[in-house]
Amino acid sequence: MSNYREAGVDIDAANLAVEGMVAAVSTTKTEAVLSEIGAFGGLFAADSLGTGKVLVASTDGVGTKTLLATEMAHYRSLGVDLVNHCVNDILVQGARPLFFLDYIATAKVVPQVVVKIVEGICAAAKEVRCAVLGGETAEMPGVYLPGATDIAGTIVGVVNRDELLPQTERLCNGDLLLGLPSDSPHTNGYALIRALLEHHKPSSAMLEFLLTPHRCYLGDVDYLAQQGVKIKAMAHITGGGVIENLPRVLPAGLAAQIDLSAWPVPEGFRTLVDWGTLSDDEAFRVWNMGVGMILVVDQTQADLLDDLGLLVLGSLHESERSAADARVRFTGTWR
Amino acid sequence: MSNYREAGVDIDAANLAVEGMVAAVSTTKTEAVLSEIGAFGGLFAADSLGTGKVLVASTDGVGTKTLLATEMAHYRSLGVDLVNHCVNDILVQGARPLFFLDYIATAKVVPQVVVKIVEGICAAAKEVRCAVLGGETAEMPGVYLPGATDIAGTIVGVVNRDELLPQTERLCNGDLLLGLPSDSPHTNGYALIRALLEHHKPSSAMLEFLLTPHRCYLGDVDYLAQQGVKIKAMAHITGGGVIENLPRVLPAGLAAQIDLSAWPVPEGFRTLVDWGTLSDDEAFRVWNMGVGMILVVDQTQADLLDDLGLLVLGSLHESERSAADARVRFTGTWR
Repeated sequence: MSNYREAGVDIDAANLAVEGMVAAVSTTKTEAVLSEIGAFGGLFAADSLGTGKVLVASTDGVGTKTLLATEMAHYRSLGVDLVNHCVNDILVQGARPLFFLDYIATAKVVPQVVVKIVEGICAAAKEVRCAVLGGETAEMPGVYLPGATDIAGTIVGVVNRDELLPQTERLCNGDLLLGLPSDSPHTNGYALIRALLEHHKPSSAMLEFLLTPHRCYLGDVDYLAQQGVKIKAMAHITGGGVIENLPRVLPAGLAAQIDLSAWPVPEGFRTLVDWGTLSDDEAFRVWNMGVGMILVVDQTQADLLDDLGLLVLGSLHESERSAADARVRFTGTWR
Repeated sequence: MSNYREAGVDIDAANLAVEGMVAAVSTTKTEAVLSEIGAFGGLFAADSLGTGKVLVASTDGVGTKTLLATEMAHYRSLGVDLVNHCVNDILVQGARPLFFLDYIATAKVVPQVVVKIVEGICAAAKEVRCAVLGGETAEMPGVYLPGATDIAGTIVGVVNRDELLPQTERLCNGDLLLGLPSDSPHTNGYALIRALLEHHKPSSAMLEFLLTPHRCYLGDVDYLAQQGVKIKAMAHITGGGVIENLPRVLPAGLAAQIDLSAWPVPEGFRTLVDWGTLSDDEAFRVWNMGVGMILVVDQTQADLLDDLGLLVLGSLHESERSAADARVRFTGTWR
């Protein structure tokens, strides 16, 4: 941590929060971190960068999951949500995390709450050897509703230029779609979830499902690479679901066909779809429905995928349909 | 721009906003930017980095100035505030900006408002050759008060390791304090300003003063370097004023003495101090009082500073006082 500073009015509360963060943030320090706490900006040695390297940066929030999580006092998991979402966002371009900075804002800083969020951020960051390099805690009465907290984060990672994903020009007819499972809605569709909760009382298992943090796929992808799986492209299934996210990495002329019976859709999603009496088109546009990341792999690797017991969802096919959201076709049923 | 995506519910409004941002963001593109709009993360070629280079990163917001600015529909200047604050924050460590990512969140996305904020961000970023590499626009009803908007940004810059500031070990008795003028409270003390505005009606000149964006000091510092001024340390006078920010770059055993009659405190600050009947200790802890950046320069450069007509505020002296906020001593009066 380098520049945690207060932007609000209650300096004592903010200082207390800063003290509480120090222990957590220091656990994420990597050999590249040069700055000490209290500097204006965080310092990260760029010696390992240079020719042929590309920085990949992304800023994201967790949406209105923050409301459900704060209502249930699940502050720590919010921090995990934030970091893992960001890690996955740059992973789809082939990048590994270098450092992370957070922004936490609320009407009235409660030091214990901020510390718990930062502890979650740091735990998730440490897991992927990502340094928490800085952040800002802002107290803004008149902007935030009482009790509400927003969190956002920025991640910077690195990839070799010749390993950037997607390798669009290599994608072709017959490529296989490999799914990595999710066990929650991650951080998407919580506006709708909260609307549904107004009319339905969740079981404790359902509540746990809804509060489960965004899964990080870096470890899975590393494992697959070690096993010899060669990834041509990846899509992070976030807001917009598979219908909107998978086409983002497909070139014109290729469409995806996905067999909805290929994987067991987790019970929690079934409950949500029941509550909302949603069509497949609606459900797969709001939630990940149990698949949080999709990898595109050449069909020559079919046997390897089979040996590894991996989940093949479908494949790519030539298609004349050009509208982005007409480029995912479903077969079978999950219901 | 690479990953502007909505995290809210009104996808059409967010898409409209994205379209409006494209033109502005594209003006900030530098040769290092590799990503096209729509990718998951922004790509920045790291070829010019490598051994001996240090990345400097900072996340910041603009505090409750957002309330005053949005009330007066000064959206564009909010974006300028955000970027310039961040640029100055890493400038004090000697760093020049590489890229910037923003986070804009509100209860209900109004595309024209978001576009104006992003236009301000891009104008300020272009000015310092900083690429706007990505961002996130979040619609979060239930978190933000109706009509309220929060903005935060993350900047990443670079400095040669042997040019990192402050050069703490070189600071010594007799060093001169050079002030760079400010023409507004920048983004600090707006909670107090808004409280004062509840009981005092501002003139139009006063309102303009309060809405003037945060000044960027990169150009001033470049000019000084060209003229041969050698900077040992810099302090960005933000929240906490000179009393809290200058000691952040001073080693133990050195204190600052500042002559309050050395510069003309802008009329707007005089009005604020009158309205609040504030002591010097209060005023110089909340606002920059007309000096937004302080540079520490060796006393052997006194003649050069004089020739250039620069503003010398005071000097460093040996001191046994160790408490951080006891290390700025005022002489003279500005009143």
